[in-house]
Amino acid sequence: MRGTARPRAGYALVIATTTASVADICAAAKDASRTLGRVDSGAREAALEAMAAALEDRTGEILEANARDTEAGVEGGLDAALLDRLELTPARIASIAADVRRVAALPDPVGEVIEGRRLANGLELRKLRVPLGVVAVIYEARPNVTVDSAALCLKSGNAVVLRGSSSAEHSNAVLTAVAAEAVVSAGLPAASVSLVAGGGREELRDLATQAGLVDLIIPRGGEGLKTTLSRYATVPVIYAASGNCHVFVDVSADLGDAVAIAYNSKVQRPGVCNAAETLLVHEGIAADFLPVALRELHEAGIELRVDARGRTLAGAALAPVLGAATEDDWDTEFLARILAVRVVDSVEQAIEHVNRHGSGHSEAIVTGSTESARAFTDAVDAACVYVNASTRFTDGGQFGMGAEIGNSTQKLHARGPIGLRELCTFKYVVEGSGQVRA
Amino acid sequence: MRGTARPRAGYALVIATTTASVADICAAAKDASRTLGRVDSGAREAALEAMAAALEDRTGEILEANARDTEAGVEGGLDAALLDRLELTPARIASIAADVRRVAALPDPVGEVIEGRRLANGLELRKLRVPLGVVAVIYEARPNVTVDSAALCLKSGNAVVLRGSSSAEHSNAVLTAVAAEAVVSAGLPAASVSLVAGGGREELRDLATQAGLVDLIIPRGGEGLKTTLSRYATVPVIYAASGNCHVFVDVSADLGDAVAIAYNSKVQRPGVCNAAETLLVHEGIAADFLPVALRELHEAGIELRVDARGRTLAGAALAPVLGAATEDDWDTEFLARILAVRVVDSVEQAIEHVNRHGSGHSEAIVTGSTESARAFTDAVDAACVYVNASTRFTDGGQFGMGAEIGNSTQKLHARGPIGLRELCTFKYVVEGSGQVRA
Repeated sequence: MRGTARPRAGYALVIATTTASVADICAAAKDASRTLGRVDSGAREAALEAMAAALEDRTGEILEANARDTEAGVEGGLDAALLDRLELTPARIASIAADVRRVAALPDPVGEVIEGRRLANGLELRKLRVPLGVVAVIYEARPNVTVDSAALCLKSGNAVVLRGSSSAEHSNAVLTAVAAEAVVSAGLPAASVSLVAGGGREELRDLATQAGLVDLIIPRGGEGLKTTLSRYATVPVIYAASGNCHVFVDVSADLGDAVAIAYNSKVQRPGVCNAAETLLVHEGIAADFLPVALRELHEAGIELRVDARGRTLAGAALAPVLGAATEDDWDTEFLARILAVRVVDSVEQAIEHVNRHGSGHSEAIVTGSTESARAFTDAVDAACVYVNASTRFTDGGQFGMGAEIGNSTQKLHARGPIGLRELCTFKYVVEGSGQVRA
Repeated sequence: MRGTARPRAGYALVIATTTASVADICAAAKDASRTLGRVDSGAREAALEAMAAALEDRTGEILEANARDTEAGVEGGLDAALLDRLELTPARIASIAADVRRVAALPDPVGEVIEGRRLANGLELRKLRVPLGVVAVIYEARPNVTVDSAALCLKSGNAVVLRGSSSAEHSNAVLTAVAAEAVVSAGLPAASVSLVAGGGREELRDLATQAGLVDLIIPRGGEGLKTTLSRYATVPVIYAASGNCHVFVDVSADLGDAVAIAYNSKVQRPGVCNAAETLLVHEGIAADFLPVALRELHEAGIELRVDARGRTLAGAALAPVLGAATEDDWDTEFLARILAVRVVDSVEQAIEHVNRHGSGHSEAIVTGSTESARAFTDAVDAACVYVNASTRFTDGGQFGMGAEIGNSTQKLHARGPIGLRELCTFKYVVEGSGQVRA
């Protein structure tokens, strides 16, 4: 366990919340959410604009707090990648502020009429999008997630309870204080944004069991966090999932497109959830496709783990650089510069492989056949199914949803990018003139 | 534990499944769901039509099986209400068959384009409604739920795993057999409909932990079932909730409408989830409203539990028939001929009461004021909020959703009536022409 953040003039508001219990913080957030749910979008937008301005105005203070975290990280032996994720710079803060302004400018999801009709008895029924209430976001090192999550939750009319990692505690405290003060300056309750201090399991369990106060938990972290939550949570959780994604190159694929899509899906950013992990190739095109595609992938530094048929069809020239795929490889989300490769007999076998081994995230077929495209999009059980495009497009921004807080591979409520709408629920409002049921 | 159903020629199909483990049944259902998810709506409709016809053709056999259950129920000392729920008659079977035909005729939710657009890079994005996969329905005595659940799940393209109570085991076995044979006659897999034998806790736990095979559990039973599920389930559950619903009579209400709506919300069917449990009355109208409304409610046999101010304002004539409300009454779902009554100072106090004590199901305001109506619909945190109409309208059929499998007070995925659309998820299908991410 770590000590709590020492009081500093700049984040007095946060200090007040860090001494409160998790239950008290959540109860205050619930109260704040009642107000947030009723204010017009203008007030929420103003809070975000104020937040962006405050981030810029108070860059020095934020950098100072961040330096304390990075110094502690260096002393504590954090590796270079984690230190990089932890570190804020003036440019990064400016970019965070710009993101907040971008979220502020998105269309308001709250109050949107999803559907509606006049019933035979004259009742006017509307299904309206409304905020969930209190959203808790649990995340790891990156302090930018503090602001990003606060902005998305406030924009969608929700109060947010943040629980970052202890390695970023000073950064998160000052960023939350900046956000909460901006919210107050826009006339909204301070408890619209709050931070749970302490990175321990106890706080996590406390937070995960505030059913009735917290309406949704979004974990943005690794598998350990997810396992803990699935064991303890009584609050609904949407898991921002990693992905075991596939690209299938059908016999009728355009070779150029197939190489480009396979390459882009793997190489453009190998460590993210929508990157491809396995390449499936129809046997009828493998002898043409594999020598070209695997050469390019190898030259991009990708380790290739190929089944026996694929190694043969790739040709002798590539043999020295191809490893052998194992059964385990089909089930592994490498999130790294590794690609498994398998030759299949048919689109049906590709579909069967994807549905057996995939995580239901993003799956692509490259094909010139409308019949194969239809079979693949009908039968593949995944959040996002692509025809002749890279799996890397699974992203709230790319989809025109404005922004996202993660990607879901669940089937209930949110599937695919979790954007502003997915941070909302709905209610039926039914207006009558004295109707009673016969 | 009970014995398993004895083999009978008429339900050979079911016997095959009752000897299988819960995991095997769910795996077979998952396989069947892959087929169901790809067939056109015509095949699913044909299966439902065949099911309705088979229910009629095999009425004798169904009645025979049902007689065994009711005889066992009489011997086992089931009370009259439960026996009535258990009993099938030719008229009830005809009504069940008619319900199946009604579901068959509903618009197909599968494949509906929820939204879609062409992205700047030329990608064609569609968000399509698709079946969840395997839906498990857990229910108590009433055997009509077997057919009803099967019809709704098949119509929405899902395989269904049914788990009824042991008191209806023979009825459920023959009804499931009839359904499964009808499904087969329409060319769909038998495992589209299956029954888990045994009403024990063990089967319940087995079913609740088939994550990856079962996509959703819908419990249609009492609080004990829900508590068990919330403890063990790793599969997502949508709780078909009971409701603590309110009618608030504002100062500006039309007196005739207010009396009619309060009466209808409580009296029309007191034992159901959308019946009112507490009546809130603005103090400015209470002296006019309460003497009339409470008289009518009393004459309808409703036990009235009224706060002190309400008892005074109701007048001396009613005093002998009014009980005193306690704090506990505000939190109680009577589901009976009992109504709690409280006088409040304002619409804000009514909102505060509803949000504190309500279960988020159905809440009504009776008012002549657009301002009060707006305040109530904005601030009340519930699935269905009514202005000048009875709470009793919360129902999939009434809402024009065709049919429902229950009502949800959850905020994620399904809120309010759980109809065919709520038994679906969606997927994004994105069609390109070689697009890769820059």
